Amino acid sequence: MSENAATAAIKELVAEREWGQFHLEENLAKSISIEAGELLQCFQWGSAFDRDRVRDELADVLTYCLLLADKLALDPETIVLQKLSVTREKYPVDKARGRSTKYDAL
Amino acid sequence: MSENAATAAIKELVAEREWGQFHLEENLAKSISIEAGELLQCFQWGSAFDRDRVRDELADVLTYCLLLADKLALDPETIVLQKLSVTREKYPVDKARGRSTKYDAL
Amino acid sequence: MSENAATAAIKELVAEREWGQFHLEENLAKSISIEAGELLQCFQWGSAFDRDRVRDELADVLTYCLLLADKLALDPETIVLQKLSVTREKYPVDKARGRSTKYDAL
Amino acid sequence: MSENAATAAIKELVAEREWGQFHLEENLAKSISIEAGELLQCFQWGSAFDRDRVRDELADVLTYCLLLADKLALDPETIVLQKLSVTREKYPVDKARGRSTKYDAL
Repeated sequence: MSENAATAAIKELVAEREWGQFHLEENLAKSISIEAGELLQCFQWGSAFDRDRVRDELADVLTYCLLLADKLALDPETIVLQKLSVTREKYPVDKARGRSTKYDAL
Repeated sequence: MSENAATAAIKELVAEREWGQFHLEENLAKSISIEAGELLQCFQWGSAFDRDRVRDELADVLTYCLLLADKLALDPETIVLQKLSVTREKYPVDKARGRSTKYDAL
Repeated sequence: MSENAATAAIKELVAEREWGQFHLEENLAKSISIEAGELLQCFQWGSAFDRDRVRDELADVLTYCLLLADKLALDPETIVLQKLSVTREKYPVDKARGRSTKYDAL
Repeated sequence: MSENAATAAIKELVAEREWGQFHLEENLAKSISIEAGELLQCFQWGSAFDRDRVRDELADVLTYCLLLADKLALDPETIVLQKLSVTREKYPVDKARGRSTKYDAL
């Protein structure tokens, strides 16, 4: 995901509208939470869902994630891979297999 | 972001631990909200933040986003680009420039 | 809930610790979202839950709600009752009975 | 807040509409997160806010909190007071005064 087409397109849209002034890290973190809430609303009363609506809300969450990553000069793909190696250690295969238990209770 | 290294690595980690059984779309949407809350916690009392902590929490949000996209057979980069074209129409440059106003109040 | 025992006790705890300086309305709104995420975590992988954990997380959400209400000089019980009358109008009994549909789709 | 006017009014509104069937604990927890996101949206781009909008969104969060408490046969005021005594111990006045540091870093 390094300086990919999505991030480049988001940055162009933002620059054209001079919205960069609103994109403090804190505001982007709030925006991710707000959009995550809208995504969750697709599942408010059960597990059935409207795929198009989920797609649009997921896109909004991702958009703000890419903006925050860019603001912090982080490559999204790299930080996901880095965090995965932490998860691998916290959740050894033999202990975590088939269980949703949190690492500190494994 | 199409079947990128990050998604492939996440899927391998999940498969090794047989965690796919927990990854209903609804549960992934909840997980995105939960991790977004942890990201927001980095900014709970103000705009100052610990960059390493933000990086880790952002990686967690992204990880669940990639899992949900994969579960729905959606390409993350494509859906972001599609949603941007909606945003471009809702927020014409001449009306939205320099303003954080929501489209229905522009 | 008007200036009830809970709000009074919260305010005393906050005053003793000189925490009022952190309790900008915005920070309290963030705190409500953060604690709501922790409550949601009790249900991350399904509908089964640990009642004691839910009780504690719900108490945290309520505590920040009472702090925000107090900060805005709002009486929690009154604003709930006021909002209910809006809901009654948006969701007439004959249209909304037995349906979880949002008002704009009824 | 024990079986107060607000809870009684919410329960009547819910019963009239036969909405109790949707109010699984898990769904109420999701609803609290969703409404917390809408409250946070009042502060998305900064600390300035529209008091009426905040009041309405806070009322929605509180309404779902009261519903969840009622569902679990918990008294809202009592659980807030119980949790406060835990907070008092985690954050002794002499260590926590004037600091927003989390208890495990005090």
